[in-house]
Amino acid sequence: MARIKLPTLHSDFSVDCVIFGFDAGELKILLIDRNEPPYKKWKALPGNLAYDTEDIDEAAKRVLYELTGLKNVYLEQLYSFGKIDRHPQGRVITIAYYAIIKRSDNGLHPVTTFAKKAFWWPANSLPKLAFDHIEIAKKGIERIRNKIRYEPIGFELLPEQFTLTQLQHLYEAILETEIDKRNFRKKILSSELLIESKNKQKDVSHRAARLYKFNKIRYRELKKGGFVFKL
Amino acid sequence: MARIKLPTLHSDFSVDCVIFGFDAGELKILLIDRNEPPYKKWKALPGNLAYDTEDIDEAAKRVLYELTGLKNVYLEQLYSFGKIDRHPQGRVITIAYYAIIKRSDNGLHPVTTFAKKAFWWPANSLPKLAFDHIEIAKKGIERIRNKIRYEPIGFELLPEQFTLTQLQHLYEAILETEIDKRNFRKKILSSELLIESKNKQKDVSHRAARLYKFNKIRYRELKKGGFVFKL
Repeated sequence: MARIKLPTLHSDFSVDCVIFGFDAGELKILLIDRNEPPYKKWKALPGNLAYDTEDIDEAAKRVLYELTGLKNVYLEQLYSFGKIDRHPQGRVITIAYYAIIKRSDNGLHPVTTFAKKAFWWPANSLPKLAFDHIEIAKKGIERIRNKIRYEPIGFELLPEQFTLTQLQHLYEAILETEIDKRNFRKKILSSELLIESKNKQKDVSHRAARLYKFNKIRYRELKKGGFVFKL
Repeated sequence: MARIKLPTLHSDFSVDCVIFGFDAGELKILLIDRNEPPYKKWKALPGNLAYDTEDIDEAAKRVLYELTGLKNVYLEQLYSFGKIDRHPQGRVITIAYYAIIKRSDNGLHPVTTFAKKAFWWPANSLPKLAFDHIEIAKKGIERIRNKIRYEPIGFELLPEQFTLTQLQHLYEAILETEIDKRNFRKKILSSELLIESKNKQKDVSHRAARLYKFNKIRYRELKKGGFVFKL
């Protein structure tokens, strides 16, 4: 039998979530204050051990809900981290997930005592985090940076209607670089991914800018044909 | 302590490798004949349980070597599979890796008795495979299909010098679709990713075609600037 050659195996595995939000021109990541050892009182990504009786995708959803109160978040697998010494209590492999959501402080309430609280933190100045969570968070940032160059993922972070300037600021926040305004507008408008709204901004001191919506139908059509939006 | 709430955990984890090669106009995947239960005598991806004492990346390298004889393969993590019933002997999460290599039958010799032999199989007509290996192989195919639209990964599958027709056939094999010849040549030549060689094909019955080399330096430059090759 295959296992005879191997030493006793009793690894545990956990799930960790890198949840991105966007607010006030900044890309944010959802963190918790841990309330349990190891790393008690440390800041960390929402994560915990998984049960043997649940699929890993389910485990990620459950853990995110328990530690932050967030439900119905569409999580995608990010990467698995398996350095032997990454957990002080023994061999724990973690499967990381990520999601891009509209930032909301409503409903950010841990439902277990494992997390003391959940809160947003700027992605470009993360504090010291428990375990190898800095590495995991960086992998998540790298992933959405790569992705936003091909796919218009950013729309999930904006309100239903937005200005071109808001959209540009979102791209600048994720890519951590300044983007040429004229070039950006030309590319994004020629991509046919935006629908011009009849509405303009309200209650602004400067000249009200045109609002746009994301053209989801066109996006799906383009994607079928192997389309990528190249910034 | 965090674990008190959880049932006893003693998951095992394994690694599985999706190794791609290219031969006679076909995309191939490396398989083994299993020589150990469960799924004894089944065809499978090269994969096995990992030791608690090794990083998962190391485990993947070791397992690939033991079951196929292949060494020094640059493996990238593909995806983790964690359905609770995916292994008949209990909870085993597997971390899948993939690699794109020049196909070679030399040195394909399992060094343990766990695999009876290792061999290449056409990716578009995979046989019944052990465990959820079909799902894992399909994830691998999906990954390289997505990747080849942005990055010129295919060059790893061709000889040092190749014709544009060979390159086109490679793209067609991976994407499983016919590509317009004129359009393909225009795009690939304007990408500046090829260096025209002084040599032409030898020993062919038709008019000898020009040979090209992959321009790695230009590729790295373009990639730094967030470049993607869009087919």
